[in-house]
Amino acid sequence: MARDVEALDLPAWSRASGPSQGPQCRDTMAHLDSEVKEECLREDLRFYFMNPCEKFRARQQIPWKMGLQILKIVMVTTQLIRFGLSNQLVVAFKEENTAAFKHLFLKGYSGSDEDDYSCSVYTQEDTYDSIFFAINQFHRLRNLSLGTLGYGESEDNRIALKVCKQHYKKGTMFPSNETLNIDSDIEIDCIHLDLEALSKDPQDWKNSSFFRLEFYRLLQIDISFQLKGIDLQTIHSRELPDCYVFQNMIIFDNKAHSGKIKIYFNSDAKIEECKDLKISGSIQKNTQYVLVFDAFVIVICLASLILCTRSIVLALRLRKRFLKFFLEKYKRHVCNADQREFINQWYILVIISDLLTISGSVLKMEIKAKNLTNYNLCSILLGTSTLFVWVGVIRYLGYFQAYNVLILTMQASLPKVLRFCACAGMIYLGYTFCGWIVLGPYHNKSPEDQHYPRKI
Amino acid sequence: MARDVEALDLPAWSRASGPSQGPQCRDTMAHLDSEVKEECLREDLRFYFMNPCEKFRARQQIPWKMGLQILKIVMVTTQLIRFGLSNQLVVAFKEENTAAFKHLFLKGYSGSDEDDYSCSVYTQEDTYDSIFFAINQFHRLRNLSLGTLGYGESEDNRIALKVCKQHYKKGTMFPSNETLNIDSDIEIDCIHLDLEALSKDPQDWKNSSFFRLEFYRLLQIDISFQLKGIDLQTIHSRELPDCYVFQNMIIFDNKAHSGKIKIYFNSDAKIEECKDLKISGSIQKNTQYVLVFDAFVIVICLASLILCTRSIVLALRLRKRFLKFFLEKYKRHVCNADQREFINQWYILVIISDLLTISGSVLKMEIKAKNLTNYNLCSILLGTSTLFVWVGVIRYLGYFQAYNVLILTMQASLPKVLRFCACAGMIYLGYTFCGWIVLGPYHNKSPEDQHYPRKI
Amino acid sequence: MARDVEALDLPAWSRASGPSQGPQCRDTMAHLDSEVKEECLREDLRFYFMNPCEKFRARQQIPWKMGLQILKIVMVTTQLIRFGLSNQLVVAFKEENTAAFKHLFLKGYSGSDEDDYSCSVYTQEDTYDSIFFAINQFHRLRNLSLGTLGYGESEDNRIALKVCKQHYKKGTMFPSNETLNIDSDIEIDCIHLDLEALSKDPQDWKNSSFFRLEFYRLLQIDISFQLKGIDLQTIHSRELPDCYVFQNMIIFDNKAHSGKIKIYFNSDAKIEECKDLKISGSIQKNTQYVLVFDAFVIVICLASLILCTRSIVLALRLRKRFLKFFLEKYKRHVCNADQREFINQWYILVIISDLLTISGSVLKMEIKAKNLTNYNLCSILLGTSTLFVWVGVIRYLGYFQAYNVLILTMQASLPKVLRFCACAGMIYLGYTFCGWIVLGPYHNKSPEDQHYPRKI
Amino acid sequence: MARDVEALDLPAWSRASGPSQGPQCRDTMAHLDSEVKEECLREDLRFYFMNPCEKFRARQQIPWKMGLQILKIVMVTTQLIRFGLSNQLVVAFKEENTAAFKHLFLKGYSGSDEDDYSCSVYTQEDTYDSIFFAINQFHRLRNLSLGTLGYGESEDNRIALKVCKQHYKKGTMFPSNETLNIDSDIEIDCIHLDLEALSKDPQDWKNSSFFRLEFYRLLQIDISFQLKGIDLQTIHSRELPDCYVFQNMIIFDNKAHSGKIKIYFNSDAKIEECKDLKISGSIQKNTQYVLVFDAFVIVICLASLILCTRSIVLALRLRKRFLKFFLEKYKRHVCNADQREFINQWYILVIISDLLTISGSVLKMEIKAKNLTNYNLCSILLGTSTLFVWVGVIRYLGYFQAYNVLILTMQASLPKVLRFCACAGMIYLGYTFCGWIVLGPYHNKSPEDQHYPRKI
Repeated sequence: MARDVEALDLPAWSRASGPSQGPQCRDTMAHLDSEVKEECLREDLRFYFMNPCEKFRARQQIPWKMGLQILKIVMVTTQLIRFGLSNQLVVAFKEENTAAFKHLFLKGYSGSDEDDYSCSVYTQEDTYDSIFFAINQFHRLRNLSLGTLGYGESEDNRIALKVCKQHYKKGTMFPSNETLNIDSDIEIDCIHLDLEALSKDPQDWKNSSFFRLEFYRLLQIDISFQLKGIDLQTIHSRELPDCYVFQNMIIFDNKAHSGKIKIYFNSDAKIEECKDLKISGSIQKNTQYVLVFDAFVIVICLASLILCTRSIVLALRLRKRFLKFFLEKYKRHVCNADQREFINQWYILVIISDLLTISGSVLKMEIKAKNLTNYNLCSILLGTSTLFVWVGVIRYLGYFQAYNVLILTMQASLPKVLRFCACAGMIYLGYTFCGWIVLGPYHNKSPEDQHYPRKI
Repeated sequence: MARDVEALDLPAWSRASGPSQGPQCRDTMAHLDSEVKEECLREDLRFYFMNPCEKFRARQQIPWKMGLQILKIVMVTTQLIRFGLSNQLVVAFKEENTAAFKHLFLKGYSGSDEDDYSCSVYTQEDTYDSIFFAINQFHRLRNLSLGTLGYGESEDNRIALKVCKQHYKKGTMFPSNETLNIDSDIEIDCIHLDLEALSKDPQDWKNSSFFRLEFYRLLQIDISFQLKGIDLQTIHSRELPDCYVFQNMIIFDNKAHSGKIKIYFNSDAKIEECKDLKISGSIQKNTQYVLVFDAFVIVICLASLILCTRSIVLALRLRKRFLKFFLEKYKRHVCNADQREFINQWYILVIISDLLTISGSVLKMEIKAKNLTNYNLCSILLGTSTLFVWVGVIRYLGYFQAYNVLILTMQASLPKVLRFCACAGMIYLGYTFCGWIVLGPYHNKSPEDQHYPRKI
Repeated sequence: MARDVEALDLPAWSRASGPSQGPQCRDTMAHLDSEVKEECLREDLRFYFMNPCEKFRARQQIPWKMGLQILKIVMVTTQLIRFGLSNQLVVAFKEENTAAFKHLFLKGYSGSDEDDYSCSVYTQEDTYDSIFFAINQFHRLRNLSLGTLGYGESEDNRIALKVCKQHYKKGTMFPSNETLNIDSDIEIDCIHLDLEALSKDPQDWKNSSFFRLEFYRLLQIDISFQLKGIDLQTIHSRELPDCYVFQNMIIFDNKAHSGKIKIYFNSDAKIEECKDLKISGSIQKNTQYVLVFDAFVIVICLASLILCTRSIVLALRLRKRFLKFFLEKYKRHVCNADQREFINQWYILVIISDLLTISGSVLKMEIKAKNLTNYNLCSILLGTSTLFVWVGVIRYLGYFQAYNVLILTMQASLPKVLRFCACAGMIYLGYTFCGWIVLGPYHNKSPEDQHYPRKI
Repeated sequence: MARDVEALDLPAWSRASGPSQGPQCRDTMAHLDSEVKEECLREDLRFYFMNPCEKFRARQQIPWKMGLQILKIVMVTTQLIRFGLSNQLVVAFKEENTAAFKHLFLKGYSGSDEDDYSCSVYTQEDTYDSIFFAINQFHRLRNLSLGTLGYGESEDNRIALKVCKQHYKKGTMFPSNETLNIDSDIEIDCIHLDLEALSKDPQDWKNSSFFRLEFYRLLQIDISFQLKGIDLQTIHSRELPDCYVFQNMIIFDNKAHSGKIKIYFNSDAKIEECKDLKISGSIQKNTQYVLVFDAFVIVICLASLILCTRSIVLALRLRKRFLKFFLEKYKRHVCNADQREFINQWYILVIISDLLTISGSVLKMEIKAKNLTNYNLCSILLGTSTLFVWVGVIRYLGYFQAYNVLILTMQASLPKVLRFCACAGMIYLGYTFCGWIVLGPYHNKSPEDQHYPRKI
């Protein structure tokens, strides 16, 4: 480190006066003359730059902070894994429900999405079939579905399916004559089909004028309906089952007018508190333990937060003393690099990590108590704090001589690597843009490039 | 750089006379004696080899060129992305149409091409079915298609489908007797099936002698027809919709006579101006803004072009002065390497990039105005210019000392890397040829190599 | 090696007294004075640190151990390959049977498992169909199966299929009203369907109240049955065919209540001795040869084990002599590093490998004799011993000077590489946890993140 | 190169006597005294170790050999590519025919093979269906196939399909009782079904006792038949079409008795000369040109062969002169390394490559003339020679100073790399054996390892 060469090299300076002299001089420092004062400062500085093992050997000071950090790694990781696994169940329930909906409502669904859309149709007949299939399946849902599903109510308290179509206001089009007369404003028509209407003769509603589609001006058809479900699985892992509202929408997208209608299925699941729950039987209630664990994590992080803040405050006070002394004795200011030595950047990392963990844990407890559903924010807080806690382990590795050399080497070589990446990044960016436009798939191929069978 | 050692090292020479002496000596140089003249040349040279920051510090010269380059990066990249995205819509429309055609006209099309061909048939019955299916679908197109499609007219103004078959003139073949009697000249038969003919009893045309195929001498069947379509999507992103002519051809390729007929589908889409367009409604017309943006890019590139050209001209003049002075004072010629120092290769890169951008932008404006459809050339011009502009950023990185070392190192190691690649390339080429013929899939396997089930 | 510098450097020390003096001094060492004793120890040490070639040159000692090791590599590898290939046949038989079962008993099985489950159903009708299909196929098995299969008997000596369903004890659920009344205790109902019952009118058992499923409280349906089979293939590779008992279970898993029932197929194959075997005909009986081969491997490993143990014992004795001498002459103890030099770590590797091989071979012979079926443990013993034997080859490479340098270099750089891995591992662990929870698939996506078709 | 240090360094020695003295001294050497003789030898040696450019500059000797090598690279590569492309057509014809056969004769063939077998059946009914389907398709072949196929004749001049079944001689098996009574000798039954028999009522032959299969003792069913075809495609690329005999065999493999019968399709295509060919029409006959090209390649390679042999002979003579002179003057022998310097290893490479090319080209001409069909050997000869020719290019790169350094560096580091690979290889081998048996797929999994659905 080039900096060390020109700087004062504090640890060395503090060690200059010979071996440590037994008495703790911090308390008695006020009523001593200059000589003793210098010695005392030297002693304090030397102690400040020791690592936990040396501190223990020098003054029998037990490394509470270090122990706390190691305990924190275990606790925070455990908490993260528990949270992740419980999240996983919720997400799996939603995804399996969406898959089941796709199999129930999309005609000819293959089991996996084609692209960002679920499936696609290419003929008028297939389009009508797909629409009527979805409506019919909705009508028969109670006899079809394997899940714990029921119809949800729309805004006006009816159990109904809403079919909307977007089309250009009016238009005539004769592609053969290259003639087009169109009003580019968009009109939206909707009908509501409730269960009663669907129970009648299907020919009634199928033949309604609404379902006479003019494909050349049709933009989009949306079929939307609401279903409700209960996630019984949570009986076994958490205390109370969640109720879900699935706001489903099937979208037939013809905006491209390319002869291919893409069918999207969107299922938006919201967790709601169930209104009327009666669970009997002998399931174990373990929610309390989870809350106790979270509370314990918070306590530990608070302790770590306080200890690290205290260390920083003490370090700043020591710096003040040192600056004053240095100004008095050598009549000059201490350089910035040396001043920075006093602020341990690892402590700052620990403090940030603790703050994140505490807020994350509080959020998690609120979610568990069903007051909040802010899973995303909680994931980010807990995830980031765990990342910082693990990165912090490197500090303790740095106490071993062999590791310290390695860490310093990596620190020194990092800027060069980044600089190389910056140069390569420039060329790569230019190449990417150029390649995208010149070689990419969105390049308007000339007809000569197409593949014909080999000429005889 | 070994060159610097033996060369004059111009920047060092120019700095030799001590710190810069305030007065701008360029204008007053004519009426000064030799001593002052040398000092003045030294001063000019020193200024010439400065980087923008130093120039600003030395003479308060604001770095216009550098600012312009940075503005250019933003503008050119924005222009490229806009062009790419608009291209993407056009290409997606064509590709989705082609996919829709394949689903409509190819029997048993699986949704993805098998190889370079779309699908294949292995029996006589399947071949007839595929041919008749395509013809029938063409007849029913109006009731099938979801797109904005109409029939196009063939050369003789009929709406018709043209079916052609290529076969050997005459032949008899008895593979069992290994007897072959064939005329290797190729005959082409065609029939035109217009909508009227197809509306009749299908047994009429299916039973015509044309469709009695003799597979052993059949080479190829082509079914070709023209469709027209309108890309309505552009109403929302550009001003006017484009009209398309799709020249489709289904090719049944039996040239290999291997018992497998490969079916190709080729769709050649041409953009034409629509004849009769009436668009009402409240869509926003943003074409002007695009044109203004393109014009602004051209202006900036022109400015950059002029400034760089001026710099090169000034540099050449300075070189002339220097050569003359050097000849007078030291009685010898300046070596080539030093002469090259005067011509900044980055300026040449910038000039090429500017010329490309200007021609690309002009072409793009013409395409937007529907005068030209030369998308390919425009892509190459804009893409290459963007590549050069981004590579040019490396120059500005070179002004930082740390980066400069890196760049020089990479320059020095490049030839060695290339030389190694050349050697490895020779061995690789030999290995490729050898592997292709000896190990490759096109190696005539002997029967002993085939896989039989394990012998008992 | 830094250690060598500060250590005594035994080989060098022993060589210090000049060239070797012919006579073998080991036996006569007791009745010689100090001078001769030192010379003799020097000689013995020098001989101890020689490699086999040098030993041969010095005392014409034939390298038995080395020859034995080389023979062992060949033998152990051959044994492992033979064992692996014979295992392969057993495993292939089981896997093909499982595949055949899946095709026979699972309706709509596609030939490959979907995930960890084989297939899945989404409607009530499909669920009933799948259950009845499996039961029917079991009934018709004798006319369906291609394998050497027969029905197995259940505990009460009936040929029967056992169908069990798990469900919550009682419950009513109205997801529409978000109302739930459930007893979380689980009830299990089972029926046994024997061949006789299945031979009657299928409507009889299909309409039984057992098969009126209430899906909202259903947790799981298990269909279990036992089949027996004979692996005839072994007639050709081993002496006697094995009899198998397949305990099959089809599981319909509805625990998630997500509208998707996952179908698992578990086939647990046990090898049993066939009760009544009569094999006539002219197959060759090669079991003896295999047993002889295994016995030979054991003998070789025993020999190698004894020789290596003897070498270690001799080395320990030599060390004792050396320590005593050193204490007498130089009045100080030999450092630990030098003491370690006497124990050849390669011999320890060889001894471990020999012990593993011997126990593995004994186990293998027992398996062959059908006394044990502990394939797993045998695989681990033989595999690990082969790994050690091959790693031991590196020792012999170390006798060549060029290789020795390489091996020492690798040894020296290993700790640094491991240390770097530890640091990178910490960062990676933190990143993994963070990425799993923040970016991972089990992240509770907010509805805004979902894909809708592009807005117009 | 360490060798150069201790060796004589011939090129340096020969250059020691000062600049070259004009006169060609080779011829006049006989009648000169010792001084002049040494000078002359020095001169000859200096010339011998020159590269072509220096030779041209020294004695105006045009580098014929080098020109010839460059011409050879072009010629040999062209020849190889032409041969590969023509081979490709033959192989593609065979592969497409095999694919067509699989589609025609295998019921439910999906278009790609499952593993090393084409498809598989799991029930008795499917097995019978697959057998009868193949036989029926053979009967209807003339109306099905698109290719130029005809029936081939079997040994006894009948057009017939041969169906064979292998089974154990006799046996009874009761897997339920674990009772087995089997004769392990294998019996083979065959029937011949000619076209006449197949034209009758299919129930006749389907109900024959042959097709009453006892699956528990069935080992294998083979359906074999011969088809003939003509590869018309070659009319356009080569002169005469080839006639093919396809010996097809469908194998139903039940050797594992695991409930899964694997179906293999083997098609063994032999090229035969057509008996009776009459090709009229205006195809171009380009065979002569190909033969002329091949002949030209042979001539060039012969020339190169002669020149290189001559160079080696001259070098050996020069070595003899040098050895004699050295013995006379310095009274000692020249070391081996210096003697090897005289034999240019590149020339040996060129000679081997030439010999391979010549034999390959002769073979190719014979194949073209339809005298031989030894494609494999010809591929190997031509491929290897091309590899050597390209590797030889590196020699010419070595004439440039910068490349020479690179090549020498690579030569020096090669042994170390190989040594490292040997060590790593040992560990890898051990790991592979261990991993195969311990972790591999052929590990006899214990039932506890199987996947059950999560327990509630």
